[in-house]
Amino acid sequence: MADNSNLKPIQLWWRPMVPNPAKIIIILEELSLPYTGTYLELEELKQPKYESINPNGRLPSIHDPNTDITLWESGAIINYLIATYDKTNKISYDTFPEKHHLDQWSYFQTSGQGPYFGQAAWFLLYHSEQVESAKERYLGETRRVAGVLDKWLGSKTSGDGNAWLVGDKITYVDLMFVNWNAAVGMFVQMAQRPKEDWDPETQFPHFWKWQSAMVTRPSFLKAVSLQKAEDVHL
Amino acid sequence: MADNSNLKPIQLWWRPMVPNPAKIIIILEELSLPYTGTYLELEELKQPKYESINPNGRLPSIHDPNTDITLWESGAIINYLIATYDKTNKISYDTFPEKHHLDQWSYFQTSGQGPYFGQAAWFLLYHSEQVESAKERYLGETRRVAGVLDKWLGSKTSGDGNAWLVGDKITYVDLMFVNWNAAVGMFVQMAQRPKEDWDPETQFPHFWKWQSAMVTRPSFLKAVSLQKAEDVHL
Repeated sequence: MADNSNLKPIQLWWRPMVPNPAKIIIILEELSLPYTGTYLELEELKQPKYESINPNGRLPSIHDPNTDITLWESGAIINYLIATYDKTNKISYDTFPEKHHLDQWSYFQTSGQGPYFGQAAWFLLYHSEQVESAKERYLGETRRVAGVLDKWLGSKTSGDGNAWLVGDKITYVDLMFVNWNAAVGMFVQMAQRPKEDWDPETQFPHFWKWQSAMVTRPSFLKAVSLQKAEDVHL
Repeated sequence: MADNSNLKPIQLWWRPMVPNPAKIIIILEELSLPYTGTYLELEELKQPKYESINPNGRLPSIHDPNTDITLWESGAIINYLIATYDKTNKISYDTFPEKHHLDQWSYFQTSGQGPYFGQAAWFLLYHSEQVESAKERYLGETRRVAGVLDKWLGSKTSGDGNAWLVGDKITYVDLMFVNWNAAVGMFVQMAQRPKEDWDPETQFPHFWKWQSAMVTRPSFLKAVSLQKAEDVHL
């Protein structure tokens, strides 16, 4: 493994309990990279100060003093960290066609999982009125996406081994899905929906096995643990 | 420019009048790549035959017989085409930090523009009931995203020159936005919304100038022209 001990800490703009910044923490941890967090309150996001870092006013963003780059969009940040600091391919592949298949699942996560799981959470918990047809639309899409992952992982499982999205080891694209996967159970329960709305252990057994293998990793547990007030200023 | 004339045609699974497959056509045209289309009816998408190509059952997908790769997710397909066939960087950069900033805007398009402009279209035109609060949510996000682009482009404009998202030339990430940008005017009009819901020429002048410079390009006009029955089997 490459020696990252001489690096200056990477600065991460973040908030706890939100899936996208937590994705970055997981990758930083998996690659043993030093980092420091700049915690932002919600009302600081769409303000000139932070918009000078990220014109989209959303989290996460990073600044890496080792290369002097500033970058936002979690998918692009992860690609940067992998390209720069995973030279031994601990959680990636640089072979053909695997590197393009990693890209494919990364875009599926950022465009197909995140936004739609997020809309489900929005209409279940935060929208200004109760709109059952919108809740059902996004819960349905959440199950459809879980079903796509379940079927794909099922096609790769052999014996008792774990199945991963690309190749035969866990990569950053598996880990990109873990936070939103974990969030669904929480917001469905908070919204007091019936069990059949989200019952992955029964409905999506390959998906469930995959997710269960990821949530015990130190990187995920670290990201989850950063929730208390004294932790948020990393 | 590299000579792509000896290549076998790249196979594209697609439908006309949908923003994501049209993104690929634009990039294929910009790079003068030979291609052939496999047209799918809507009811063919989530079926075993097409799911053996793309387990997500959505468009587009490609198969490139020159390298024998099969790939889906428009963002990953475009990255593959650029990495493989834009060796002279006609519409890309391979320099640091530009290559990561291209990635950043590509993820913003696929995760921040496409899904939200798409939800606006859905609630304005296709949802099972009229939900004004959902229409306003997604029209608001559509304007917010256009505003982010407008402000960024405005910060780069100098004199009468065109401004582009990365560097000082048009790249594939500018072109990734063009189809959804063009679609908004259409679905807002079809839904008979008031002019202030979407008036980019007034509300977002830098965005409007940028979009206007893109919609006259032969690649965009070609993608738009592929709408008639005799054209759909490319």
